[in-house]
Amino acid sequence: MIEGTNFIGSSASAENSEYLTASNPATDEKLSGEFHKATQEEIDKATQKAQEAFLRYRNVSGEEKAAFLDQIADEIVELEDTLIERASNESGLSHGRLEGERSRTCNQLRMFADLLREGSWVDARINHAEDGSPDVRYMLFPLGPVAVFGASNFPLAFSTAGGDTASALAAGCPVIVKSHESHPGTNELVARAILKAADKTGMPEGVFSSLNGAAEVGSKLVKNSKIKAVGFTGSYGAGTAIYRMAQQRDEPIPVYAEMGSINPVFLLEEKLSEQAEELAEQYAGSVTLGAGQFCTNPGLIVGMEGSALETFKNRLSDKLKEAEVGCMLNTGIATNYRKKRAEIFEKDDIEILTESGPEEGNYGSASMATITASDFLKNDNWQEEVFGPYTLVVSCEGKDQMLEVAEHLQGQLTVTFVGNENELTEHGELVAQCREKAGRVIFNSVPTGVRVCSAMQHGGPFPATTDSKFTSVGTASIRRFVRPIAFQDCPEVLLPNELKDDNPLDIYRLVDDNFTK
Amino acid sequence: MIEGTNFIGSSASAENSEYLTASNPATDEKLSGEFHKATQEEIDKATQKAQEAFLRYRNVSGEEKAAFLDQIADEIVELEDTLIERASNESGLSHGRLEGERSRTCNQLRMFADLLREGSWVDARINHAEDGSPDVRYMLFPLGPVAVFGASNFPLAFSTAGGDTASALAAGCPVIVKSHESHPGTNELVARAILKAADKTGMPEGVFSSLNGAAEVGSKLVKNSKIKAVGFTGSYGAGTAIYRMAQQRDEPIPVYAEMGSINPVFLLEEKLSEQAEELAEQYAGSVTLGAGQFCTNPGLIVGMEGSALETFKNRLSDKLKEAEVGCMLNTGIATNYRKKRAEIFEKDDIEILTESGPEEGNYGSASMATITASDFLKNDNWQEEVFGPYTLVVSCEGKDQMLEVAEHLQGQLTVTFVGNENELTEHGELVAQCREKAGRVIFNSVPTGVRVCSAMQHGGPFPATTDSKFTSVGTASIRRFVRPIAFQDCPEVLLPNELKDDNPLDIYRLVDDNFTK
Repeated sequence: MIEGTNFIGSSASAENSEYLTASNPATDEKLSGEFHKATQEEIDKATQKAQEAFLRYRNVSGEEKAAFLDQIADEIVELEDTLIERASNESGLSHGRLEGERSRTCNQLRMFADLLREGSWVDARINHAEDGSPDVRYMLFPLGPVAVFGASNFPLAFSTAGGDTASALAAGCPVIVKSHESHPGTNELVARAILKAADKTGMPEGVFSSLNGAAEVGSKLVKNSKIKAVGFTGSYGAGTAIYRMAQQRDEPIPVYAEMGSINPVFLLEEKLSEQAEELAEQYAGSVTLGAGQFCTNPGLIVGMEGSALETFKNRLSDKLKEAEVGCMLNTGIATNYRKKRAEIFEKDDIEILTESGPEEGNYGSASMATITASDFLKNDNWQEEVFGPYTLVVSCEGKDQMLEVAEHLQGQLTVTFVGNENELTEHGELVAQCREKAGRVIFNSVPTGVRVCSAMQHGGPFPATTDSKFTSVGTASIRRFVRPIAFQDCPEVLLPNELKDDNPLDIYRLVDDNFTK
Repeated sequence: MIEGTNFIGSSASAENSEYLTASNPATDEKLSGEFHKATQEEIDKATQKAQEAFLRYRNVSGEEKAAFLDQIADEIVELEDTLIERASNESGLSHGRLEGERSRTCNQLRMFADLLREGSWVDARINHAEDGSPDVRYMLFPLGPVAVFGASNFPLAFSTAGGDTASALAAGCPVIVKSHESHPGTNELVARAILKAADKTGMPEGVFSSLNGAAEVGSKLVKNSKIKAVGFTGSYGAGTAIYRMAQQRDEPIPVYAEMGSINPVFLLEEKLSEQAEELAEQYAGSVTLGAGQFCTNPGLIVGMEGSALETFKNRLSDKLKEAEVGCMLNTGIATNYRKKRAEIFEKDDIEILTESGPEEGNYGSASMATITASDFLKNDNWQEEVFGPYTLVVSCEGKDQMLEVAEHLQGQLTVTFVGNENELTEHGELVAQCREKAGRVIFNSVPTGVRVCSAMQHGGPFPATTDSKFTSVGTASIRRFVRPIAFQDCPEVLLPNELKDDNPLDIYRLVDDNFTK
């Protein structure tokens, strides 16, 4: 079933004799499939086809694109356990977790289908002619072919048919996915599903391609002049490398790189003293969820020094010691987790609360340390993400120091506050300060878990992402792949339906500065 | 009246003994004022004050910001002829033109005030909790202090209190303007007006600063870590330099550089044959308007070879010969215009139709050349902007070649089509192709003139701007200076008014995926 080819549009292609293989991180067992690395020629063909597809796909109606997205979801469901099994073998994630992720992936595709059917997302604006000023009409149009780099930690929801692909296809942009080296087989199965859906719904050839390879293939893709935007989820190193590469092109292009975060959590005193044990248990679950391999993993927990924080730390430490040792996504991530943790555990300023436990193969045990705010504030090193089931608890001497910690924070995907309403109000300055550092501010919960909806912002100031103005989750993520075009005194017959006077698509528009249908 | 100081918030400051002076381009006469270049210390103070102001200004209500913007407009009007005279002396632009530009500047400020009072621009979204999913609410928040670089060709509307400043202040971002070296006196007058308005309406100290200096001061400002975005209107060279600089910071920031365009015009056959002379006269006016110093100047006119195009060219050439020789904005622009024109006129492939006329001092005469599409298509040189009253007419052998010219075009602010409805429809592919190259598509008019309204897109693909997703004119330009933040399960008391359940500001919001008030 797994053939290891690239897909240049619907054509399987395997020009290169060099290939990658996949292995099961839980057992180090080699998995089936020799995944041929895309050659420069194959990359050029795929981008050429994407460009040609764009000329047609940009004019495909919302209804038709919606049918395509729905069909992709249906085809993914059709893959049944074949997909779940391969994804589990390639990622070490459980069947249950992957079934949930599959639902999310399909729901995301259907969410964009609904958005397209409703149609108002194009932000249509009309100013009729007046006082000698011309008639001007404005709406959003797709940018062109988009390159997508999936994430190892979400082989379905942030990968081949994940949020980036779904939003780019919804926007009207053809997509070329560079398959993730950790799950090329999962990629192939999903790529086939997308191509089948494209065929069944009559989408133009080249609307989707899939290429295998390592960083080199990715670089060539980003540098290709036909690529007009990049979606990426992964590490800071890879994300910033792609970002710099894209800015240095003759024509710079936008790169939406979601690069992770340590997701600071502020535990306020009253609430903590009331629920120290309960919160510790809740957070133990959040820290170890998916072996800590979520971009919203709580890697930094800040509280006021005192007995409540001690209780919390002790209970959290105990729970982490008891936690099942989780399989990491791949050898690179497992090695890196141990290395970074070891570097931190060697430092003087911290106290280790949960040592690393026994770790075989690619497994990573949960661990935890604590540091005083004074030491934390000395430099930025403590804010480096340790991707895995690790957290650092920072103890503050008072409200001012907690505020100092907040001011010292780098850009984050999320910041969380745990506190009773009165103390949250008292800490208004802290909340306001943290708002500047994050894309999402969470109250009395854990940062792991991202609701897919129109009000979600999954993004944040650098270094959490390369563009804080956009989200990679939720309906607003479509905005990453479009730009406005204005038409001045355009004859009715040439106007897109969204901008015609009688509003044939029945969408919300801003007409002469009034919202109206 | 003109004192030549920087303004660090409301404090005049002149630490540096080095200064710039201004001169009248029409007479080369030196104008009053020694404009002290900002020192590193002054830049640091201004950004520090801006950062402190941001902590308060971000919480100022829409109503209050609106009062501030309206007051700026009032203060500018209060400057009466003092402002018009100084701006005219510094730019060589006529009083009439500058009075019009002042109206536009004040109207822009009032337009943003209206936008803030209406309030729906924040794109508020609410997804209530359901099925175990949390309550999530989303709206746009300001990025932080913004650096603004004004344009020489619009000393009022694209400068100190121009569109960039108005939209950034409306967004909730403090602004630091680097005054344009061509009109530092105009800048000082307007800066004082802004500071007076800030004082009268109780805005926080540091919400606006103005610094004098050359490129070096600009670089230091862009590199300052407290600056979170840059608005720029000017040349490709300066715009891309600022863009690269901003991307190389430890924390990259968005740069909205509007860098100009040659604004291609396609003359379709039927319409041209009916109105060749009339169109030539219309276009002579557009080419020479403001001595050709508009970013939407028609620098490229494309038609089908034949007698109608000959008539058009001859008439246009005659009108350009007759045109008054205009004063250019400054010596640099006048010199550059002549140099670039000379380089083109030396080339073999073109035929000169209007030679340069007598040009004294900083005056530039209108000129024009023609080239065959075959020669035009040989390379990109013909697409370099010649900033001034110059245009190049490209003659095509047929529809296919015209399409080839369109495909060959770089990114533009505008593309214009002149044609009857039937032939516009027949050229559907051409129109579609050009749409990909421009921010605004104009029908049966001239590209000069930009209506300030909510449906305007003044932007376009690189190299016209550094970010095609945004406009620098119209209400949508506020989007450049904001980012979304989501609140998850936030207690009502901590929510901004825009996101409270009872919608106290009565704004349009997306509530559970339905637009509603």
